[in-house]
Order: sequence, then C-alpha cells, then structure tokens
Amino acid sequence: MKTLIILAHGSRREESNQEIVELTNKVKTLTSSEFEQVEYAYLEVVSPSLPEAIDSCINNGATHITVFPYFLNSGNHVKRDIPEMVNTAKENYPQCSFKTSECIGMIEKMPNYILELATKT
Amino acid sequence: MKTLIILAHGSRREESNQEIVELTNKVKTLTSSEFEQVEYAYLEVVSPSLPEAIDSCINNGATHITVFPYFLNSGNHVKRDIPEMVNTAKENYPQCSFKTSECIGMIEKMPNYILELATKT
Repeated sequence: MKTLIILAHGSRREESNQEIVELTNKVKTLTSSEFEQVEYAYLEVVSPSLPEAIDSCINNGATHITVFPYFLNSGNHVKRDIPEMVNTAKENYPQCSFKTSECIGMIEKMPNYILELATKT
Repeated sequence: MKTLIILAHGSRREESNQEIVELTNKVKTLTSSEFEQVEYAYLEVVSPSLPEAIDSCINNGATHITVFPYFLNSGNHVKRDIPEMVNTAKENYPQCSFKTSECIGMIEKMPNYILELATKT
C-alpha cells in the first residue's frame, strides 16, 4: 500500500497543529492512485511522531512510504534529523520501502507565490 | 518607496540561510511595480534581524513596508512574535506604513504542490 506521511515541525499552538490535520485531509481528497494512505506526523512538541506514524501506517498495510518534509529550508531538521529517522525506520522495517521527498520549500514557483500573497490586499 | 521584507526563521546551517538570499533575489527579478525594494531578514539565529532590516530599508527610503512571514503555520512566531516586532516598528517609525502579509503556508494550492513534489521521482 502506497503511503504518504506529511511531516511538519509541530507547534505549541494547537491551532497551528490543526492546520496540518486539515492539510492532510485536503491532500487525501486530491490523491487517487498515487497514495492509498495519507497521514501526518510532527517532528517535535506533539504526537504522532514520525516513528509513531510509520508504525501505525505499516500496521495498516503500508509497503511503500514517502515521507514528505513540510519544511521550507534545508536546515538541520531536513538534512540531518529526518534522514536519521528514516534510516532507523528502514532498519526496523526492511519489508517496506522508504523514500524521502524534497521539502516544500523546493517548489519551483515559490517566488511567484510569495509575490501573490504579499500583494493580496 | 514600497518595500517587501521576506522574513524567514533562520537556521544554524549556513546553506539553509543562503536559500533565503537566493529566494529574495528571485523575487526581486520578478517584481516590477509592486515593490521597489526587496530584502530579507531572519527571526532567530542569524542577522539581519527584522528590526535591523526595517532600519536599513527605512534609511534607504522605504515609506511602505510589507513584512512577509516565510513560515508554514500560524504558530507562535507568526501569531505572536512577528506582530509584536511589527508593532514596535510602527511606534518607532510613524512616518512609514507597515503591513504584515499572510504566511506562505496560506497559499491555496498547497495540497497540490505537496502532491506534485511527493510524486516526483
């Protein structure tokens, strides 16, 4: 079962974490054949953590997991922390294939989207 | 002079901060009449800070400043820290008008962009 896990930073502000739940639901309604399972996880502060989400997805039948770092920049979280966690998951679940996507900051038209929002009145 | 300040979190990883410099340059080349000045600032870890960038832009002739929070979620940075800093700037520079844009996480088609990157091979 092809699975997507949207991994966000996690916040002390509950409304901010709720945005990730809503975002995940929107991605679920958009995806058809690409991913049969779409879940979310947080790197810090709140649950589910990435290892918890991976466990749960595998229990639910995941055979291919794409971890999507919902982060803007390739800082230490994206370049060090997330790869370490995904490597541990690979060791724990050799029967599942893992892939880590580029982070959201890598979308090509980001400068256009910034201008779009910044000029919105 | 209409000015845009792209405000990022700031990272201990220099390459990550460099991405903001490059992003700002791309926005500069895209914008024409909307903003005559485009600068960047970081909330934490590295300079220029937002107050430093505001000082510099005003010295350079800014009369209207739009602060663009390059953040994904409406966590404490977006909802508390940035508004506090912008309010202080308003008090310090009553001759300049300030606006804070929605953060980048609010772009409408975010779920589509996530799927686009996540399915990229």
